Amino acid sequence: MAMRSHYCGLVTEALLGQTVTLCGWVNRRRDHGGVIFIDLRDREGTVQVVCDPDRPEMFHTAEEVRNEYCVQVTGLVRARPAGTTNDKLKSGQIEVLCHELKVLNPSVTPPFQLDEENLSETTRLTHRVLDLRRPYMQHNLMLRYRVAMEVRKFLDANGFIDIETPMLTKSTPEGARDYLVPSRVHPGMFFALPQSPQLFKQLLMVAGFDRYYQITKCFRDEDLRADRQPEFTQIDIETSFMDEQDIRALFEHMVRTVFQNTLGIDLGSFPVMSYQEAARRFGSDKPDLRVRLEFTELTDVMKEVDFKVFSAAANMPGGRVVALRVPGGAEISRSEIDGYTEFVKIYGAKGLAWIKVNEVAKGRDGLQSPIVKNLHDAALDAILARSGAQDGDLIFFGADKEKVVNDAIGALRIKIGHSEFGKKKGLFEDRWAPLWVVDFPMFEFDEDEQRWNAVHHPFTAPKDGHEDWMVSAPEKCLSKAYDMVLNGWELGGGSVRIHRADVQQKVFDALKISPEEAQLKFGFLLDALQYGAPPHGGLAFGLDRMITLMTGAESIRDVIAFPKTQRAQCLLTHAPSPVDEKQLRELHIRLRSVEAPKAA
Amino acid sequence: MAMRSHYCGLVTEALLGQTVTLCGWVNRRRDHGGVIFIDLRDREGTVQVVCDPDRPEMFHTAEEVRNEYCVQVTGLVRARPAGTTNDKLKSGQIEVLCHELKVLNPSVTPPFQLDEENLSETTRLTHRVLDLRRPYMQHNLMLRYRVAMEVRKFLDANGFIDIETPMLTKSTPEGARDYLVPSRVHPGMFFALPQSPQLFKQLLMVAGFDRYYQITKCFRDEDLRADRQPEFTQIDIETSFMDEQDIRALFEHMVRTVFQNTLGIDLGSFPVMSYQEAARRFGSDKPDLRVRLEFTELTDVMKEVDFKVFSAAANMPGGRVVALRVPGGAEISRSEIDGYTEFVKIYGAKGLAWIKVNEVAKGRDGLQSPIVKNLHDAALDAILARSGAQDGDLIFFGADKEKVVNDAIGALRIKIGHSEFGKKKGLFEDRWAPLWVVDFPMFEFDEDEQRWNAVHHPFTAPKDGHEDWMVSAPEKCLSKAYDMVLNGWELGGGSVRIHRADVQQKVFDALKISPEEAQLKFGFLLDALQYGAPPHGGLAFGLDRMITLMTGAESIRDVIAFPKTQRAQCLLTHAPSPVDEKQLRELHIRLRSVEAPKAA
Repeated sequence: MAMRSHYCGLVTEALLGQTVTLCGWVNRRRDHGGVIFIDLRDREGTVQVVCDPDRPEMFHTAEEVRNEYCVQVTGLVRARPAGTTNDKLKSGQIEVLCHELKVLNPSVTPPFQLDEENLSETTRLTHRVLDLRRPYMQHNLMLRYRVAMEVRKFLDANGFIDIETPMLTKSTPEGARDYLVPSRVHPGMFFALPQSPQLFKQLLMVAGFDRYYQITKCFRDEDLRADRQPEFTQIDIETSFMDEQDIRALFEHMVRTVFQNTLGIDLGSFPVMSYQEAARRFGSDKPDLRVRLEFTELTDVMKEVDFKVFSAAANMPGGRVVALRVPGGAEISRSEIDGYTEFVKIYGAKGLAWIKVNEVAKGRDGLQSPIVKNLHDAALDAILARSGAQDGDLIFFGADKEKVVNDAIGALRIKIGHSEFGKKKGLFEDRWAPLWVVDFPMFEFDEDEQRWNAVHHPFTAPKDGHEDWMVSAPEKCLSKAYDMVLNGWELGGGSVRIHRADVQQKVFDALKISPEEAQLKFGFLLDALQYGAPPHGGLAFGLDRMITLMTGAESIRDVIAFPKTQRAQCLLTHAPSPVDEKQLRELHIRLRSVEAPKAA
Repeated sequence: MAMRSHYCGLVTEALLGQTVTLCGWVNRRRDHGGVIFIDLRDREGTVQVVCDPDRPEMFHTAEEVRNEYCVQVTGLVRARPAGTTNDKLKSGQIEVLCHELKVLNPSVTPPFQLDEENLSETTRLTHRVLDLRRPYMQHNLMLRYRVAMEVRKFLDANGFIDIETPMLTKSTPEGARDYLVPSRVHPGMFFALPQSPQLFKQLLMVAGFDRYYQITKCFRDEDLRADRQPEFTQIDIETSFMDEQDIRALFEHMVRTVFQNTLGIDLGSFPVMSYQEAARRFGSDKPDLRVRLEFTELTDVMKEVDFKVFSAAANMPGGRVVALRVPGGAEISRSEIDGYTEFVKIYGAKGLAWIKVNEVAKGRDGLQSPIVKNLHDAALDAILARSGAQDGDLIFFGADKEKVVNDAIGALRIKIGHSEFGKKKGLFEDRWAPLWVVDFPMFEFDEDEQRWNAVHHPFTAPKDGHEDWMVSAPEKCLSKAYDMVLNGWELGGGSVRIHRADVQQKVFDALKISPEEAQLKFGFLLDALQYGAPPHGGLAFGLDRMITLMTGAESIRDVIAFPKTQRAQCLLTHAPSPVDEKQLRELHIRLRSVEAPKAA
């Protein structure tokens, strides 16, 4: 429309012989044999524009344009001369012979070349507008849009409706830290930005909207790890009158549809694995199934070995001893093993025992390891038999509290799998590996506080028949929670919720939340459950993470237009920033420090 | 799926003879001749369920259910007996003969009947979950969803992509008051919640995304008038490489498509009216064209009349005198005229002169009014001729500063048009009346501050050829701004933006914004404009207001799931609320008042 007839990147041989008008940015200009070539770029790609000196006015303009000038070109689409075509571009078979060239806006010299690699993140975020012009960022954000739109189309077709929930809501001091917003009208009072629309979406189910979704911002004021942002985007979904299996089936279908329609990838049907099995086999509740390494359980046979590290772990309450067999691992050098030993310490392991399997047939004598002499024959036999050890393997061991073993050996499993060695040895399958993890425990015991906490959140329903264990035997009680995992990342998760006030009360009892406290924090939900709340459940997907996975981006910040740094700052707009004293006074607050920061 | 085969409201004669399973709420239960009838309700409507005593177990359950119980029904779809059909319901030709009835969740007695009218807003907002179950609110929010989805589909088909902009952004102390968010990581610093994504969407254009949209929350901490909310939803749009006419044409097409596809209404093509014409004829920049009343300009003929009120206004700089002829208005009583006189005082008018036209043919003698004696013949002739007065009309007058006249007589025009009298006399057309208002002034003079302010915002482009007036003659300078008006409400508005740094600088000069101040507030935009910013423009629609208009809702709060009161509170969750001292300490702030409020 208007200033343009076509996008640059979409001019193809279908338009041969036609006159087109294009608008875009000068990606590159080169003079070659008295002719000027301009690679003109817009969001759909680039096209080659040829400026001949036989139109002197146009040619003069062409001589003046520089990189990142915004220009309008009118010209004739013609075939590129033989030998100069470019099969990598959609427009690679043609070029545009320029008739008119107009500078819409010149550009000063950019602080970096758009095709420069290894730019620092500080440079990129400071000059975000130019960074966003790069095809990599254009692609990431356009894919993000396509994914969100595919999600909307799928949900629309399935009767889900988008209902907006408040951004200015109530602080509930649990979970992560809230972002607070002082109220001007109500002195001393604060709104909180939502950590998720959890309670509101449950209220919408009680209100009878039946199927809800929202793609919405959530906020957590946490110390930022590599892949966290103060504000992040959630695909938030809730439905009434569907059970756990129905919900999983529908949203597996949704994610498969989205991958198919945006990337052309069929994820196949998702395996379902219990939390218990995932922990047992992979030491993780979000196992990366691309890594072909599994734990071997050894706790039972290590109770009476002389090697104290193993026997102590095998005998302590909640202790665990496992092996991780690495096929072909005998090639791994001592210094690499030392590196892995340091690595597992990050996860709380005190060391990393190992055995090199030189010759299985020789039994004890075929093994090379500092610990073999302290293991009795039955233990050694179990290690070799259960792990299926072969000549040339390396076996690592973890022995500690279960959590430490799972975290440390689980991380080691990933690290070896993803290493050059792992890829060479076929320990890593290059594929998409989705699964559901189900049957999570309802509660976990907090040793420090000496109390039970909810593994998901206190509105998660127990499995049928587990209700009575909530107070009598919380450790046995499983929940109707489920996580969708892809390539070792949690893509989303949710649960069937409690819809009866009496069951909700039992959970609060188990969590030692007093009726007063429950009323104060969740009174509006408890109240709502009394009025014929329907059976309901749902889940939420992290959109930022999903797009990071789908694009293969290095960082979540590469799939967000204007992200914050890991210090929670916007380098482009310089937010946060100081504000006027008058503004603070209106909000009934003052700064705690004696000296206010200077205006930036 | 799963617990349900069909929605209640969608069971029709197409399902005759089939067994269906329904889930929903008991809207009403009545016993009639030993049979129990249940009106079962879900979001799609209600269906009549018949419970016969020949299935005793089911019948016993039916006897126990009460209003708002959540139940599951399995039964046979059969025709209603002759004479008992209900043409108002989709399901009105059939009923469901109940085979099985299961209570999914009982309900305590609701605090009000769902079909109760004239509930107080406090009651409705306190028990919002039950209020949302009412068909009125279900319809409003479902229409809201359909409108948003139609907007998305239209924009998608036209190459617009949804890109999320930050919620935690920078405070710019102009326009409305910001909601602030204290930073924990950066003591003494604050984020602001966005008043609109204006600067970010312009940056996205400079970044080359070409066509952007977002349906997003915006925030203004203002004292709330009837139709304002602290957080509101904007359909925010920006495009590159389109001029004013193209933009208007495309978004007129969008709004027409949305109305057609959701309400089945063809708005027709929109008239275009200059700001000047709208002010001259209707005293408003958002005229309600359904009201068939117009101003008559009289300033020129009133300069020398004896009636001081008129001559003073006609002679003062920026004064104005107008008539508003009301056909058939001679019927309006003196006490009604007194009421209108009080009404215009709200808008700053000091009084309301009037003339009753008894007989035009008799000239001065045919007129009845306290002011006629002070008007010379030429003035009277002009009044009658220009207004086209007929026997039986009433003519009102406004004389004051132009703004006062426009506001007061403009409001009077609306009030009379919408009155019972106006409707009876055909002064109000019951239709949809859209239009574009264009050619806004760039600047308005602030008498208090003795400086020029931007009428829209300082990024609005001047009309071609008006650039040089920006400093030399700001009052003559018109802008490329446009508002879409429907039935007297501003539905949306926007402008072509300035894309050249030198033009932007001229605007800041005209507004007396120093280079330092400009750099501090908008430095990132000014910086971006240097790098080949494309010609661009856009607009934003207020979604809440659009849905209020489309549904005919009484209040904007009836089209928002969880609105705030006019005191900016959520009665459901009790937000805002006090927070822990620890939270404040972490945010480096303290309360200004000596006494902290008690925890609620």
